[in-house]
Amino acid sequence: MMQKLQKPSGMPFHRYVPFQDQITVSLPDRTWPEKTITEAPRWCAVDLRDGNQALIDPMTPDRKHRMFDLLVRMGYKEIEVGFPSASQTDFDFVRQLIEQDKIPEDVYIQVLTQAREHLIERTFEALEGAPRAIVHLYNSTSVLQREVVFKQDKPGIVDIATQGARLCRKYEEQLLATSGTQTDIRYQYSPESFTGTELDFAAHISDEVVEIFEATAERPVIVNLPATVEMSTPDVYADSIEWMHRNLRNRDSIILSLHPHNDRGTGVAAAELGYKAGADRIEGCLFGNGERTGNVDLVTLGMNLFSQGIDPEIDFSSMDEIKRTAEYCNQMPVAERSPWAGDLVFTAFSGSHQDAINKGFDHINARAEREGRSVDQITWAVPYLPIDPKDIGRSYEAVIRVNSQSGKGGVAYLLKTEHGLDLPRRAQVEFSGVIQRRADDAGGEVSGEEIWRVFSDEYLPSEGEGEQWGRYRLGKVETTTDDDGEFSMDIQLQIGGRWTQQTADANGPIASLLEILRRDGVDVRLLDYTEHAMSQGGDAQAASFVELAIGERVLWGVGLDHNTTTASLHAVVSAVNRALRDAE
Amino acid sequence: MMQKLQKPSGMPFHRYVPFQDQITVSLPDRTWPEKTITEAPRWCAVDLRDGNQALIDPMTPDRKHRMFDLLVRMGYKEIEVGFPSASQTDFDFVRQLIEQDKIPEDVYIQVLTQAREHLIERTFEALEGAPRAIVHLYNSTSVLQREVVFKQDKPGIVDIATQGARLCRKYEEQLLATSGTQTDIRYQYSPESFTGTELDFAAHISDEVVEIFEATAERPVIVNLPATVEMSTPDVYADSIEWMHRNLRNRDSIILSLHPHNDRGTGVAAAELGYKAGADRIEGCLFGNGERTGNVDLVTLGMNLFSQGIDPEIDFSSMDEIKRTAEYCNQMPVAERSPWAGDLVFTAFSGSHQDAINKGFDHINARAEREGRSVDQITWAVPYLPIDPKDIGRSYEAVIRVNSQSGKGGVAYLLKTEHGLDLPRRAQVEFSGVIQRRADDAGGEVSGEEIWRVFSDEYLPSEGEGEQWGRYRLGKVETTTDDDGEFSMDIQLQIGGRWTQQTADANGPIASLLEILRRDGVDVRLLDYTEHAMSQGGDAQAASFVELAIGERVLWGVGLDHNTTTASLHAVVSAVNRALRDAE
Repeated sequence: MMQKLQKPSGMPFHRYVPFQDQITVSLPDRTWPEKTITEAPRWCAVDLRDGNQALIDPMTPDRKHRMFDLLVRMGYKEIEVGFPSASQTDFDFVRQLIEQDKIPEDVYIQVLTQAREHLIERTFEALEGAPRAIVHLYNSTSVLQREVVFKQDKPGIVDIATQGARLCRKYEEQLLATSGTQTDIRYQYSPESFTGTELDFAAHISDEVVEIFEATAERPVIVNLPATVEMSTPDVYADSIEWMHRNLRNRDSIILSLHPHNDRGTGVAAAELGYKAGADRIEGCLFGNGERTGNVDLVTLGMNLFSQGIDPEIDFSSMDEIKRTAEYCNQMPVAERSPWAGDLVFTAFSGSHQDAINKGFDHINARAEREGRSVDQITWAVPYLPIDPKDIGRSYEAVIRVNSQSGKGGVAYLLKTEHGLDLPRRAQVEFSGVIQRRADDAGGEVSGEEIWRVFSDEYLPSEGEGEQWGRYRLGKVETTTDDDGEFSMDIQLQIGGRWTQQTADANGPIASLLEILRRDGVDVRLLDYTEHAMSQGGDAQAASFVELAIGERVLWGVGLDHNTTTASLHAVVSAVNRALRDAE
Repeated sequence: MMQKLQKPSGMPFHRYVPFQDQITVSLPDRTWPEKTITEAPRWCAVDLRDGNQALIDPMTPDRKHRMFDLLVRMGYKEIEVGFPSASQTDFDFVRQLIEQDKIPEDVYIQVLTQAREHLIERTFEALEGAPRAIVHLYNSTSVLQREVVFKQDKPGIVDIATQGARLCRKYEEQLLATSGTQTDIRYQYSPESFTGTELDFAAHISDEVVEIFEATAERPVIVNLPATVEMSTPDVYADSIEWMHRNLRNRDSIILSLHPHNDRGTGVAAAELGYKAGADRIEGCLFGNGERTGNVDLVTLGMNLFSQGIDPEIDFSSMDEIKRTAEYCNQMPVAERSPWAGDLVFTAFSGSHQDAINKGFDHINARAEREGRSVDQITWAVPYLPIDPKDIGRSYEAVIRVNSQSGKGGVAYLLKTEHGLDLPRRAQVEFSGVIQRRADDAGGEVSGEEIWRVFSDEYLPSEGEGEQWGRYRLGKVETTTDDDGEFSMDIQLQIGGRWTQQTADANGPIASLLEILRRDGVDVRLLDYTEHAMSQGGDAQAASFVELAIGERVLWGVGLDHNTTTASLHAVVSAVNRALRDAE
């Protein structure tokens, strides 16, 4: 009894050929499982190419510059910035980086090109005047693409690559001969769709290209092995990398690079095991952006090293800012459970987890005191928290879940169903802490009325609900946008009981109000902003949520109004009033 | 030259101890890398316990039943349904399943309990009258938790577990003696925080518990090894599983189970390599819900098997329905790049990918014709599409990205910035196809005016913009909700040029309109619905988006109005008109 009770699914699984029946990867004497990672690989961030390519809305020039600046600031030294021969926008961006002298001395920009003459010519045109760059040549080598797309045999595919490499040399020479700048050109070759390519053929074609590029130990060539589609478990990918590592002809003159995608959800593992298997370098994107399921996630890889006591050589200390910038540039949210960065990863919901965490904090504090050092200086060891969230600018949140009476769901659910308010995830986490501190009944059961009383007193006192409190109160609002698009705003603002008239002309209503508050001595920055229609009843009322950094603290504010501008200003006032009340 | 240019990050990585300095896992003669997965493991879905536990809003009873029914329908035979001794809601849910006879004959419900007498007693109370159940006993065994939380030495920790196991036997006997039902009780033991536990101690404590449960090959005990916190690369986890597999005393009487979490983003890999290393069973959640970064993702694991020609023994053929139900139950979105299920995973943005995919489709169609079979019957092989999306009820989408002139961003960006419209991701994908078919200039550069012209003609013709077309047009809307909460709606609806007066009283405005349309012969179901305030100018206007299944097709509709109800009705009309126009 209790045999496996599962039944055949009826799904057409017989249509699919197991990886091992497509490509042979045999390495019984593999050595990678005995290796341990002890230092960071070379990183290459491809957010501006592979990442950008997979956005429904490609990045605007402004978003591209923001992403480039972020990657530089974090410490990436090799940054793929585009496919300039395939896209005018990419070409223009490369030109801007060069002409506006945006490339720091220790940073290589990287540009992708197919192995076709007009594309290669155009690629070198884009690089004129660059101090240094990596030219990334690729062609597809897999069994499937040879047969279906290129209809070529192996020698034909090798020809595409070697011809491309020779053309690169030719246009490099022309560039160096005609340009005033001595551009330091390096090369990268990718046998694209490597995971679907026979290993000996992948090594052969790479060797041929590396020879044409005249790789030496002093001037190595990057050989990049893409899991263009992730096709196997990550240990098999690692075997294939170790095989290449051992069999590439001129290994000392090669920087062996990985480019994992995440079709099977094992991209991070593939990168880590492939790195153990002999690779030197990893290409990926912040938060795993990229075609389909994305490229391997550089944030996860770097933070995994950090959590093992290894310097990632990338600065993740302001994780929220990194996340916000990436979200702005990609116009894609980072998932709540995304490792190290998601909104929920440093929360604990289970009571026993919270209890263990509290004991862990007590223990670490006691140890620090005993050793006469600060907590920051001693070894981290707290159950359920693999790192100190403070090291990346986050904090630990114990989430007490409050059920309403009758088990009808919790706080966020009630606010949504009974009041039409859809709190952002981090505001939900914050409010759960407020409820925990302020609800009369802390037993895990709170009535809907009690939740609303606490919510409106905490966030909405200046809007006429609950007890009236708070240094600031908003009166009449007038905004003007003139013919040139210049914005200005006049408001009545009560400050500590006295009504004042205020004017500002920052970029929009929120920015203007923040300017007015700064004049009154409040150290305030906008972190996040969102707004939605409240679908209660007929007339649309808007709910605004702002996340502000006020001094050292981060708080949410909420504003409700029929007018969306006014709602957002109320939300700012709400957050600032809350910060000042707590500071008292 | 071109040495690694990365600099020290300045982050306090020295606070963290590498895994290998915490726990010794040594298995140089590991055999798992040579193994290949050939059949599905036993699955256990813990969405209703570990998953539900980690939601800000715990599931309501309705959401719990929906999740349970979904898991049963998909084919899961072991389902952890709660921690009944810790939560009245969980207790009540278990009672409902039993008393309402909701547990199919071949399904085991599983309940979690700590090793404390009053909790164990209460757990068996919850099970009274159940046909069969797995009692899942756990206590934490890691070095850190022994020291910091329990302040016990190893024998003390073993006592907690063995006492718990004896109490289980005692209350099982009482249950069987007093209850009319012969409940088939099975046991599971988890040395919680296994990944932070010395392997020999984990084996010892498990062996002791297994002995008390009198495991036999006929009545085996499940030994479950949680990566409560994921602490190492997945190959090391696999080594630890193979070590346990070899060293557990009574292996033939044990079902060896994995419970990976995803702190390092390698939960899927840990499950796959651990399964190769000798495990029989995997616990996880749909789409990786669970504490912090979540439990291992059961959808990814199952689909990974499917894509390798192995029956997952779980039915994923209606992936969108699975996703929508999970999103409803968890009130958490599934990320756009989530493997196999995300909105973007069967899209191709790159022109060369699209070209290769088209050639792949041509090739597969030609092969099918040659072999005289349908495409469904022959081996799948299309570049960049690891499976046929149709096998899970999805479709492939080539996304042509349209830049506006001046490179100011694409379609979704322009709709957002210039018209205040924030399209849901799948509506963006749909509209990119519309633009591709209908824009005058297909060269990848389209003006903002052209985008708006196409958008409003396609989605908004009945709202007075663009050419007027469409079978339906909405007039005056009156809704009434009486004292008992009964809803009814009267509308003027133009049908094929004639104004009619219509009444319906379904659950709300959208449901009522769908009822009216069904009466007119339209086969229509609501799939998704979302709405937002348009932050253009002063007064809040609402934008509504609905995704409808109309006959065989899935389409989006858009509605704009100051009144949110009216906006949503316009959106329904928009989608239905579009479907009828395309059908003509």
